[in-house]
Amino acid sequence: MSVIRYEVRKGAYYDSVVLMQLQKALTGLAGVLDAGVVMATAANKELLAAGDLLPEGVEAGADDLLIVVKGEEETAVVNALAQVDELLKRRRTSTGQDFRPRSLEAAVNILPEANWVLVSVPGRYAAGVAEEALRLNRHVFLYSDNVSLEDEIRLKQMAREKGLLVMGPDCGTAIINGIGLGFANRVQRGNIGLVGASGTGLQAITSRIHNLGGGVSQAIGTGGRDLKEAVGGLTTLQGMDLLARDEETAVIVLVSKPPAPSVVTRLLSAALSITKPVVVSFLGYPPPARRLGNLYFATTLAEAADLAIKLAKELTSEAETAETSRISGYIRGLFSGGTLAYEAVLGLQAILHPLYTNVPVRPEQTLPDPLTSQGHTILDLGEDVFTQGRLHPMMDNDLRLRRLRQEAADPETGLILLDVVLGEGAHPDPAAELAPAIAEVCRQRQIPVVAVVVGTEDDPQNMDAQIEQLQEAGATVFQDMTTAISYIAQQLAASSLVAGTPVSLTAFGEELSAINVGLESFYDSLKAQGGTAVQVEWRPPAGGNEKLMAILAKMKQQA
Amino acid sequence: MSVIRYEVRKGAYYDSVVLMQLQKALTGLAGVLDAGVVMATAANKELLAAGDLLPEGVEAGADDLLIVVKGEEETAVVNALAQVDELLKRRRTSTGQDFRPRSLEAAVNILPEANWVLVSVPGRYAAGVAEEALRLNRHVFLYSDNVSLEDEIRLKQMAREKGLLVMGPDCGTAIINGIGLGFANRVQRGNIGLVGASGTGLQAITSRIHNLGGGVSQAIGTGGRDLKEAVGGLTTLQGMDLLARDEETAVIVLVSKPPAPSVVTRLLSAALSITKPVVVSFLGYPPPARRLGNLYFATTLAEAADLAIKLAKELTSEAETAETSRISGYIRGLFSGGTLAYEAVLGLQAILHPLYTNVPVRPEQTLPDPLTSQGHTILDLGEDVFTQGRLHPMMDNDLRLRRLRQEAADPETGLILLDVVLGEGAHPDPAAELAPAIAEVCRQRQIPVVAVVVGTEDDPQNMDAQIEQLQEAGATVFQDMTTAISYIAQQLAASSLVAGTPVSLTAFGEELSAINVGLESFYDSLKAQGGTAVQVEWRPPAGGNEKLMAILAKMKQQA
Repeated sequence: MSVIRYEVRKGAYYDSVVLMQLQKALTGLAGVLDAGVVMATAANKELLAAGDLLPEGVEAGADDLLIVVKGEEETAVVNALAQVDELLKRRRTSTGQDFRPRSLEAAVNILPEANWVLVSVPGRYAAGVAEEALRLNRHVFLYSDNVSLEDEIRLKQMAREKGLLVMGPDCGTAIINGIGLGFANRVQRGNIGLVGASGTGLQAITSRIHNLGGGVSQAIGTGGRDLKEAVGGLTTLQGMDLLARDEETAVIVLVSKPPAPSVVTRLLSAALSITKPVVVSFLGYPPPARRLGNLYFATTLAEAADLAIKLAKELTSEAETAETSRISGYIRGLFSGGTLAYEAVLGLQAILHPLYTNVPVRPEQTLPDPLTSQGHTILDLGEDVFTQGRLHPMMDNDLRLRRLRQEAADPETGLILLDVVLGEGAHPDPAAELAPAIAEVCRQRQIPVVAVVVGTEDDPQNMDAQIEQLQEAGATVFQDMTTAISYIAQQLAASSLVAGTPVSLTAFGEELSAINVGLESFYDSLKAQGGTAVQVEWRPPAGGNEKLMAILAKMKQQA
Repeated sequence: MSVIRYEVRKGAYYDSVVLMQLQKALTGLAGVLDAGVVMATAANKELLAAGDLLPEGVEAGADDLLIVVKGEEETAVVNALAQVDELLKRRRTSTGQDFRPRSLEAAVNILPEANWVLVSVPGRYAAGVAEEALRLNRHVFLYSDNVSLEDEIRLKQMAREKGLLVMGPDCGTAIINGIGLGFANRVQRGNIGLVGASGTGLQAITSRIHNLGGGVSQAIGTGGRDLKEAVGGLTTLQGMDLLARDEETAVIVLVSKPPAPSVVTRLLSAALSITKPVVVSFLGYPPPARRLGNLYFATTLAEAADLAIKLAKELTSEAETAETSRISGYIRGLFSGGTLAYEAVLGLQAILHPLYTNVPVRPEQTLPDPLTSQGHTILDLGEDVFTQGRLHPMMDNDLRLRRLRQEAADPETGLILLDVVLGEGAHPDPAAELAPAIAEVCRQRQIPVVAVVVGTEDDPQNMDAQIEQLQEAGATVFQDMTTAISYIAQQLAASSLVAGTPVSLTAFGEELSAINVGLESFYDSLKAQGGTAVQVEWRPPAGGNEKLMAILAKMKQQA
């Protein structure tokens, strides 16, 4: 039979390192079988219970420290708990810094060249510290999690106006000027710059780049929520813009879990405006192609690294001249082939948002009325609703010709996309029927037409003659969908990267100086990497008392 | 002012070619501005209305033929309508076949070597014709759409028991023994075999294979619904099995829009058991990797063709020896890195179903209780719920060690997957803490452990020593997630391809003989390609009368 005893310290603040060290120390004492030292959140209590470490009748909440000790005998357990205060004192020996400022402001006075503030205090205090750092005109690396979405948006908007970065909250990893912030691998410097909404994503890619002989210019973290609709990729866009202007960066890598669809479009159309190659690794987002213009889509983290290294080596000075003809208006796709229509949706959804279709990839893309296009529309005219008692549009062009005229008459139409599928069973001469209508659209309405022709030179229609007829009518012809989509992507009006003040490059490329507020191990690691740093001796304002905190915050704002 | 007149023919059956030809003929008459000839479904009436061709007060339903003519004057319009019967008679001149059997049975007597029956009659009659073909032991190419899901399942199960294929319903394309069925491009024969739930998908890929110098052994269509949960990929599995056994096929291509998740797993684990390379083009399904074992994932149709050609050229006789060690039980992943966990979910969801996790790719994957694993489980221990008042698992191994023991004690656990992330900020020696626990799991519990180590040789932990410690404890170590997942994929017990009677290879590789029921253009095209064919002079049973049809069907079943 084992004995279990516990102690609750109400409303006490300790940082997580202290708690871990205390738990280890208790577990190491003679006669102790196991110990738990946690802030008593519901999840932590469940975890204790799962480990058979939660005594009955414990009354403690999320703000309380709960210390549990299990031992073979009563004496050992009681003895262990009696040593808690002693053990808590013991750990203060690690860092070598003699004097510790007690506020961020004081730290800035000590190290005025510090452009960066690392924040890893508990979530409820983190937004306040980050805001203070922004007021002091410093970039913020915000490691803390459990920060509200509202706070994130407010901080990032404030940063954008000031031309500063807020990396985070919940940002695990960054590498600035060769120095890792938070969790980061030691990698050589080089010409690959990264922006990542994912910590271990950045770690996996930068490690592999290093291991394969490449190097990293800057790796900018954004926090996992940056690519949600509500935040809209604020930091990611700033980071891309920064790397686009940074002379040391030749190739850009963008990594995250799948962003919100609207954000995908915003990021990719911004990325298309950059003259450097951009490797896109949106894990789990169906890639529109392997390549669209200067965008290269990776399937895995390992592949993102491989692609970046390959592109960084291949780089020549052939800056592709930007096309001058731009599409204005909506794209309307009229397809006879269902899978071709679907492939068009898959490709175009990455760069056009919102997009409507009767072959949706996502339910919200469903076109309410297949007989009327709205916004960007991709239509499969071979769907069941169009083929009842009617020949398939591969055999009978009537329906498509009528729809073509309908789209051409719509002043919102900016480009018409068609497929022409040749082969056995299909119409013997589709181009002959389509060409006059295409000519009318291109010449009289000045609406560009792009056609994808599927076929072989052995097909009964004579493929070359079909292509020629379509081209003579004014259509731009491709033989696979991906090339057509890449062409369209390059014709789209590029969206600008950043709306606010661009981030100044002065904090990048030089030595790194930073102020650390929170986990001391981050300070130790900055120093170990040769960075200049100051550790703030941080304590929660008003000892963690919520009411007092609110009053203090108000006073500060008025000052 | 234009004049519009119409005529309704109640319950009349005409095939779609006849209707198209009539409409064209009417439009071509002097004084006629436009004409519409359709079965009067709701959609078709809307389409007429959109083209300003639907007069007010038309009373006609889906079974009625509606003929509308618009002209400049009354006389021309009335005159045009008067010619309808004449025009309907005129078209009977196309095919050269003298005698036309009036039933499938009669056609089989005329051409007993015909292994194939093409069915393109209207949807409501199609299942009956297909079933008769199966009774006569013929493979079916079922072009017709608007066939019910129940009929599809019934027909496919019947086919599987008999070792026959039902390609379709709504199957647009197949190439059998070098002859295209339905819509198909003329391509040279070769060693690439395809199975496709998508007509233009097959057309785009086979065309490109031909255009790039490759060739096609067989291209098997399945119909678009074959990969839905309810059908479960019956025809696709038969097709893959067939191509796996077919000596002319060296590389297999699998193409479709994204299948149901459970079907993805079934297909891919079956494909993993084939010794030939399989190119997978599930458009829009996030690829787990570029390659997993013998599976190669393509992003676009064009890339599927490119990959197939590359693999067909590279083929050597190095048949990879099947691994003997097999995983039995569930996979449990315990991650410190969120993105690594997500990448594991992305990769493993393709081969394990169902899979549960706290970093879901799809909502239904959400693990109900993060503290308890169920089935295959991937857990990110760095999620907010685990880190309140607690250090991140990259710094503090305590939580992971406890969970590791919990999983090891679960008799359902078959393999444990871990990440070990090195670098600045992380634990100074994670392997030292993990190795003893791993050794216990591997040695005492006989549960294999796979670890993915992220790091560089410059990291403070000494990467090589970390890897060595983990390996000595018994873990199999990889340095990226994709290689680890590929390893796991090859250890999974392979699922068998086909449950019923395997399809005999006798109908494949020889000349093609077929019976065509429906669109005459398909008969013409079979003949034009050098196939042997008989056209059935098909009319709806009982003149399309539903009640009589039901009685006839009953009598046939009893016979």
